[in-house]
Amino acid sequence: MKKAQAFRVVGNALPRVDGEDKVTGRAVYTSDVRVPGMAYGKILRSPYPHARLARIDTRKAERLTGVITVLSREDIARYELFGATYKDQPIVVVDKVRYVGDPVAAVAAADGATAEDALALIETEYEELPAVTSIEEALAPNAPLVHEASAGGGELMGYHYQPPKEFRGSNLCYRFTYERGDVAEGFKKSAYVFEDTFQFSRVHQFSMEPHATVAHVSGDMITLWASTQDPFTLREHISAVFHVPLNKVRIIVPYVGGGYGGKLSVKTEPLAVALSWKAGRPVKVVHSIEESFKTVSRHPARYRVKTGVSRDGRLIARECEIYMDTGAYADAGPRVTQKAGYRAVGPYRIPHVRTDAYTVYTNTVPAGAFRGFGTLQVTWAYESQMDIIARKLNIDPLEFRLKNLLRKGQEYTPGDTPVDCDLSEGLLRAATDVGWKRKKTKPNIGRGLSCCMKDGGGTYKVASAAVKLTADGSVFLLTGTVELGQGARTALSQVVAEELAVPLERVIVAQLDTDATPYDAATNASSSMVVMGLCVQRAAQDARRQLLRAAARHLKEKVERLSLNKGKVCNAKGRSVSYEEVMTKTFGAKAGEIIGRGSYQDRKSSAAVLGSPTTFWETSWGGVEVEVDRDSGQVKILKYVSVADVGKAIHPLQCEGQDEGAVMFGIGHTLMEEMIYHDGQLVNPNLIDYRVPHFGDVPEKFETILLENRNGPGPYGSKGMGEGGLLPVAPAVANAIYDAVGVRIRDLPLTPEKVWRALHGKS
Amino acid sequence: MKKAQAFRVVGNALPRVDGEDKVTGRAVYTSDVRVPGMAYGKILRSPYPHARLARIDTRKAERLTGVITVLSREDIARYELFGATYKDQPIVVVDKVRYVGDPVAAVAAADGATAEDALALIETEYEELPAVTSIEEALAPNAPLVHEASAGGGELMGYHYQPPKEFRGSNLCYRFTYERGDVAEGFKKSAYVFEDTFQFSRVHQFSMEPHATVAHVSGDMITLWASTQDPFTLREHISAVFHVPLNKVRIIVPYVGGGYGGKLSVKTEPLAVALSWKAGRPVKVVHSIEESFKTVSRHPARYRVKTGVSRDGRLIARECEIYMDTGAYADAGPRVTQKAGYRAVGPYRIPHVRTDAYTVYTNTVPAGAFRGFGTLQVTWAYESQMDIIARKLNIDPLEFRLKNLLRKGQEYTPGDTPVDCDLSEGLLRAATDVGWKRKKTKPNIGRGLSCCMKDGGGTYKVASAAVKLTADGSVFLLTGTVELGQGARTALSQVVAEELAVPLERVIVAQLDTDATPYDAATNASSSMVVMGLCVQRAAQDARRQLLRAAARHLKEKVERLSLNKGKVCNAKGRSVSYEEVMTKTFGAKAGEIIGRGSYQDRKSSAAVLGSPTTFWETSWGGVEVEVDRDSGQVKILKYVSVADVGKAIHPLQCEGQDEGAVMFGIGHTLMEEMIYHDGQLVNPNLIDYRVPHFGDVPEKFETILLENRNGPGPYGSKGMGEGGLLPVAPAVANAIYDAVGVRIRDLPLTPEKVWRALHGKS
Repeated sequence: MKKAQAFRVVGNALPRVDGEDKVTGRAVYTSDVRVPGMAYGKILRSPYPHARLARIDTRKAERLTGVITVLSREDIARYELFGATYKDQPIVVVDKVRYVGDPVAAVAAADGATAEDALALIETEYEELPAVTSIEEALAPNAPLVHEASAGGGELMGYHYQPPKEFRGSNLCYRFTYERGDVAEGFKKSAYVFEDTFQFSRVHQFSMEPHATVAHVSGDMITLWASTQDPFTLREHISAVFHVPLNKVRIIVPYVGGGYGGKLSVKTEPLAVALSWKAGRPVKVVHSIEESFKTVSRHPARYRVKTGVSRDGRLIARECEIYMDTGAYADAGPRVTQKAGYRAVGPYRIPHVRTDAYTVYTNTVPAGAFRGFGTLQVTWAYESQMDIIARKLNIDPLEFRLKNLLRKGQEYTPGDTPVDCDLSEGLLRAATDVGWKRKKTKPNIGRGLSCCMKDGGGTYKVASAAVKLTADGSVFLLTGTVELGQGARTALSQVVAEELAVPLERVIVAQLDTDATPYDAATNASSSMVVMGLCVQRAAQDARRQLLRAAARHLKEKVERLSLNKGKVCNAKGRSVSYEEVMTKTFGAKAGEIIGRGSYQDRKSSAAVLGSPTTFWETSWGGVEVEVDRDSGQVKILKYVSVADVGKAIHPLQCEGQDEGAVMFGIGHTLMEEMIYHDGQLVNPNLIDYRVPHFGDVPEKFETILLENRNGPGPYGSKGMGEGGLLPVAPAVANAIYDAVGVRIRDLPLTPEKVWRALHGKS
Repeated sequence: MKKAQAFRVVGNALPRVDGEDKVTGRAVYTSDVRVPGMAYGKILRSPYPHARLARIDTRKAERLTGVITVLSREDIARYELFGATYKDQPIVVVDKVRYVGDPVAAVAAADGATAEDALALIETEYEELPAVTSIEEALAPNAPLVHEASAGGGELMGYHYQPPKEFRGSNLCYRFTYERGDVAEGFKKSAYVFEDTFQFSRVHQFSMEPHATVAHVSGDMITLWASTQDPFTLREHISAVFHVPLNKVRIIVPYVGGGYGGKLSVKTEPLAVALSWKAGRPVKVVHSIEESFKTVSRHPARYRVKTGVSRDGRLIARECEIYMDTGAYADAGPRVTQKAGYRAVGPYRIPHVRTDAYTVYTNTVPAGAFRGFGTLQVTWAYESQMDIIARKLNIDPLEFRLKNLLRKGQEYTPGDTPVDCDLSEGLLRAATDVGWKRKKTKPNIGRGLSCCMKDGGGTYKVASAAVKLTADGSVFLLTGTVELGQGARTALSQVVAEELAVPLERVIVAQLDTDATPYDAATNASSSMVVMGLCVQRAAQDARRQLLRAAARHLKEKVERLSLNKGKVCNAKGRSVSYEEVMTKTFGAKAGEIIGRGSYQDRKSSAAVLGSPTTFWETSWGGVEVEVDRDSGQVKILKYVSVADVGKAIHPLQCEGQDEGAVMFGIGHTLMEEMIYHDGQLVNPNLIDYRVPHFGDVPEKFETILLENRNGPGPYGSKGMGEGGLLPVAPAVANAIYDAVGVRIRDLPLTPEKVWRALHGKS
């Protein structure tokens, strides 16, 4: 795949295959789905952070005209607890509520307004309990326990997650450790030791489309239309919760309006299923924005990083202690913590390392997967500290990084995939383009750099795809990758069109339906272009081989002498036949289809720390120039340069869009986003009080550079991308603020107030 | 496949997989489909059998509140004509109406009642033209022409149908001829020559669910939910009419409430598409019973059969002249005529044969495919005449047939599949069970026999299927066979369950969706058990091989030493592992799927008269005992014995149900059903005036015998079935009436009036 290759479809910024549907509003999302007889479900949520549910009486609500049924704890006794990793979450609260927003009951009614009205008629009595809403509170001696009993463990892609026994009676629920060399020895050898603690705030995924499910329990069949990123995994969760085999669960995924990790695993879907089961009809449950805020978030984290350096600026030892607040239920917390712990070391050569990463329960909204998946919390810390060290050592932060970066081919940890790019290349590009060495012409201007690396593709991936080539040369692609807005449908179709030499518009992606679509683990971890890209490419190549063999028979020519071009099979002498002719001759009529199939699975290796070498390395670099207003503390991003190692951009414009979107996401948690708890209450679960970046926040100069070295394992040397752009933003901006005005802030977000206080010495 | 085999699932009358859905009313049919924004379409139909459409003004209708749009001839200029064989049918009438019921315009409105009201506001002016409503009128000199210009030809499963040039200027539109030996010579050698003309009436398929379509044109995508028997063929028709490639047409098939051929090819679907296109939203078009009566029917036919016999009762020569009335548009007429002509000879050894079969246009409802597909019209004639000859020669009709029957392995025509059963076996079973030789104990009692043969499986078949075996041993079956009520979903699932050694309930059939489901030509011609059965079996075997290979790796055992049993892979020593274990080990997690694929296509052979040897022979025998009331002419069926050659009954109870249903269908056209035209008007398009058999018409004694000789090409030696039972009914009953009271009636149906008139010498 490394050799020069002329592309027909790949590498071109063609119109998105879903573009017209989306700009015209024709695109169907889960909330557009209407099933005959469908009721509307609304959820009663806990107003307390922690309380025993003493009494619940749904009779008045049930009597309201238009109400079909009310679901409460009595109805769910025979169903299992659920959760992405641990099984610790009930469909509705049974004994006690654990956070403000915890589902207590649900109503199905003829319309949403009636369902909403009925919620007010449900009588509840709570006995309040003391709550813990921060890592500090949760870890304090004699802290109230969010979960008295240990949660059940669970499987996730071949890994078993189990709360350690020693954590019983505490709010700790998971620990990841990693060690190499001898850290104590390392620190002894170090000329300087730096120890800093960084805080990462709780932020929300905020998909434009909140969580939405239409559930239809009919006989022994459970059908879901779901706004999900991983229908096959969701199928497994539903199968487990309701004790039915996988063939009794069908999940259909319409367009999804953003996921960012917040729609992975299992969220409100079991509730929708239980409600449909009790209502005896299909039920639609669509969250408000506020409800999605109360469903999932990113882990707030505290990362104490201690780094030893030699006199000449070589990293010698690093000790990482990370606490991640997973809220009231574990969700993906243990896995996010594992990844955070694993990624805490950074893209540097450090002989002595120890990492301890802990997951902590609190009485707050559960934290789960979120674009970046545990990496943000650690890049924020280690890339901030890199500048702290460089400044202290009086080394240029760029030079300091270049001196310590891992080299291509080196191992991040033993057994993992060797580093698959030249880490200095992107860093130098970012530095050059942001004008790192350029003289500043104004005061209060500063520049910052950051270099981040994430094991891409998720922990362990299994996927497959199929391609149907039909009589007139049309191609149908069956893929389990969810179109979340990221453009996967277009990019995967491009791969198919390329391999089968048809125009992009001749490829159509079939409706994602777990009954019919080949298995895919999840649309996450920037994995689709590599994992599903390879499946799709292999499926297309399988179809291509069959087509060529068929053509060879009819042209009486060797397969090797045939090639595909523009919907025709051509021989060396310029003779060609259309696919339609080949198909018609093969099938004896304008009929039939060639079915190609392709699959992919990651390697497992006991030598790898996480059991499986990473699918690829997602590497990204950021360079930023900011201007700080000393009077207001306002930080303005004058220029942002994002460099992404994409291997080969299948659709360059989409790659740029993904990368720009990622940077904007990063600007959100860097400068403004924060879910704020006060007295156990989430006080800003809405877009007035919780500000996300808007167009006015786009950097004045905004550049995305795609490195295309064909160094990825995906089709044509591509890699996954889309998360990378996020990683460097916060530390790069913090480093630039320091460069501009000499203050170092260790808590996100870098609000004007914090900057102002730092400037004026008030904490 | 012939060796003794212990079956686990196959051969058992297990509960139907769709049974619970259907008895509870949960099953979704096209008319249950609701798409957001959907409008309701109604069709304005011609009140004249033949008239020029002078003017049409839709403005008043368009102004009615609730009307979204009105479709008329101005809107369809850029779309093609359509038709199963010839392209002769417009979406709505352009120049002239050709039968009472011809679609003239269509309205889309917010609800059905408004659409209905709007029809009355469409102003039309017609110039009436003389009409032809029977074969005789159509063939008369200077008869008015139904079509002035020749229709465009069309492809159908690799056969090109084209109206012969010499028929221009006449109402003839197709001719099929077949000849062997020298008929003139044959008649010269014959001791006796018999010439009889038989008439077969026009009857309607009458599905419980009339034709129904939801069409949604959205951007350049056309999506249909359709009550169709052949979604892939329909896709091709829609693609051709609207000039879009196949990947821009998606057809989803919910449950279908009966088809019987009436839902093959293309009917009202293009109109629904055009209406949706003009309305700019989805449109549902559901026929009333009357509209379905005015959409498709079985070909009325006139068959003159001339047969020469030797003194000792051997058939020597047969000349067949068949005219089939295809109504105003060809639909499948040419193909039905071809099949009628081909099948006219009957299951007998006759050295000299000539067949001429013609299709005739008339100003009546189009006639198309209908269970039996052209065979009924000819078995009615040849099996009636067999008795006429036998009586004349004073030979027992049973003995006469036995003497002349083709033997197993003999060719029906050169190049065709040799006869694949012992034709005498079934005939003797029917005779024995109906008490052929038993003495009659009452007057006016008579017995009749009939033996019929049909090349089964359709002209030429191409199909494929896929099977997904998933992590917990659940199996998903992707098949294009439509569940019409015939039980295909159950029987095909049984084959999969058998091959993969799982209980039937672990197999689920995915929603039929042309985007995702592998190609299948059609659910017709009793083909599914053989054609799709083999695809499904091969797909399951493909999955099985992959499963065994995977298990072999993990068990460190040779594949040949492993077998499947109850969801486990077992070795010879009794060690076993569950599929879930094998899958988990193979995929490294409880993830992934094994995809099996299977396909089938008929052979093509230039040696075969129809270009392709028949997939199998569908052979059937009927024995009947009737009592005739001399005063009323009423015929009562005292006993009916149906014998069906099924090879191997995959689901015996369903086979019996299919066969009994077929006999009841036969009783309909034999004793009561007839669509009656008067002055060009169809006078009985409803279930009051057009009587179909009800439970009171079930024979007092009713027996179905399934011959299971494992002589079929389908899975486990199975054959297709479901049409065979129909074929012998009419001639067997007519023969029994003759036996009872000595009158021979040559026109169907055998109504009391006709029998009474024959008994009393009045015609």
